[in-house]
Amino acid sequence: MSGSSEKTCRIAIVAPGRSIDCALADDARAVVARTCGDAVQLDFHPQCFLTDGHFAGDDDVRLAALVEVANAPDFDAVWFARGGYGACRIAETAIGRMDGAARNKRWLGYSDMGFLLAGLDRAEIGRIAHGPMPIDLSRERGEPAFLRALEWLRGGDAAEQGCAAPAIALNLTVLGNLLGTGLEPDFAGRELWIEDVGEYMYRIDRALFHVTSSAGVKRCSGIRLGRFSDVPANDPDFNRTDEQVVRYWCERSGIPYLGRADIGHDVNNTVVPFS
Amino acid sequence: MSGSSEKTCRIAIVAPGRSIDCALADDARAVVARTCGDAVQLDFHPQCFLTDGHFAGDDDVRLAALVEVANAPDFDAVWFARGGYGACRIAETAIGRMDGAARNKRWLGYSDMGFLLAGLDRAEIGRIAHGPMPIDLSRERGEPAFLRALEWLRGGDAAEQGCAAPAIALNLTVLGNLLGTGLEPDFAGRELWIEDVGEYMYRIDRALFHVTSSAGVKRCSGIRLGRFSDVPANDPDFNRTDEQVVRYWCERSGIPYLGRADIGHDVNNTVVPFS
Repeated sequence: MSGSSEKTCRIAIVAPGRSIDCALADDARAVVARTCGDAVQLDFHPQCFLTDGHFAGDDDVRLAALVEVANAPDFDAVWFARGGYGACRIAETAIGRMDGAARNKRWLGYSDMGFLLAGLDRAEIGRIAHGPMPIDLSRERGEPAFLRALEWLRGGDAAEQGCAAPAIALNLTVLGNLLGTGLEPDFAGRELWIEDVGEYMYRIDRALFHVTSSAGVKRCSGIRLGRFSDVPANDPDFNRTDEQVVRYWCERSGIPYLGRADIGHDVNNTVVPFS
Repeated sequence: MSGSSEKTCRIAIVAPGRSIDCALADDARAVVARTCGDAVQLDFHPQCFLTDGHFAGDDDVRLAALVEVANAPDFDAVWFARGGYGACRIAETAIGRMDGAARNKRWLGYSDMGFLLAGLDRAEIGRIAHGPMPIDLSRERGEPAFLRALEWLRGGDAAEQGCAAPAIALNLTVLGNLLGTGLEPDFAGRELWIEDVGEYMYRIDRALFHVTSSAGVKRCSGIRLGRFSDVPANDPDFNRTDEQVVRYWCERSGIPYLGRADIGHDVNNTVVPFS
């Protein structure tokens, strides 16, 4: 269990990509009240509920909310509400404005939030993990995923994978789109765990050509394969499983293939602390 | 008109990505016979008609056909039959096996074939252009596009854009997936023309974050915007046109935005020689 039971753990929630409904926030607070009592306080930033076309408020609004919670000393953690695209538009600027308070926090999310996880990792800001977000409460049987994430945010280690080696976990498409940018982390000597959702197998294959050709990625200690879910049917059939595709590009690039990883866009998505 | 009217111009056609039907080859030969007589001979490599799942034959088969026509001294040009994904799996190996005969040829294609165009450009092999392919004959009113490409392949300049500056043209998604790989060309001092098809606007936005963050791309003299066609509806609306998106990332990255380019997945796709 958490080692922070003496004082209330305050968790700020922002949405650097798309917005969430107020009902989700109500559900999340109810679960926390029932399971944690006063030991945890969830602070949903009002920005989470804004919409500006695709985004949870325009870039300036999302940037301001993110920097505000990052630099507020009274928050112990920042939890990204959901993914959905948008973090890359504000990540570098936000990270550049973060001060010492941001370094004392835990940071958690996945999917599009990988742009921020990677950038924070590169800037060596705080303790970072890839794992469930409040939006996962809206999945069927999503509460255990929500609570697993909460446990890590409170300072627990119980939810952490049995990964002895240093690791970094990212959505494959997000990873491909941050290589060569100011958000690319140092992969040297770390396991690289990948997952994705809704991508055709030919796109996964193409992204792996790109990713495994990267000089930075080649320095990783190996690749672990999370779940690639909701893969649309290729016409004609691609004739290769996700594992065959990943093994192929690992072999071709000389990157060790390390087997499966228990991450993905689903309720079994485990918490993978970056280390 | 072509300056090669004295001798027959022999054009080899291969399919490094997906396959074509025999009927398309028949149509292409008929158009050539009607419009060029004996002045042009189209040699469809049998590999064009093979299928192995997604691909026009497995990697070894496609690689062998590509290297064969590249190194055959009796061909004046290599024309890629169509795109459709697959070129990145064989491009670097193929280019590494090309000899002097490949350097005397013209090379033409677009879309997924951009992996090869870029790699050939990087290796300084032959005269390369982004432009129509035989598959474009299957578009409604596709014959002018086919003939425009043929004219350039025969050595003509009439079909070339009025672009005074050195240029390179690529599919945006392909461009994003070749940055940092052994296929990345030298963008320094050249205009970069981009186009795409079937991509959501949020994906175009994300790809432009990636591409305009690239140190290599930042050395280009500016970006020209081709057509982004068949963009699926974003839900909610992305609220930005393709031009607004490209202008945004150009301004943010300090890359000049140079205006429109007459390229795209359509019959108006012009021939853009790399220079």
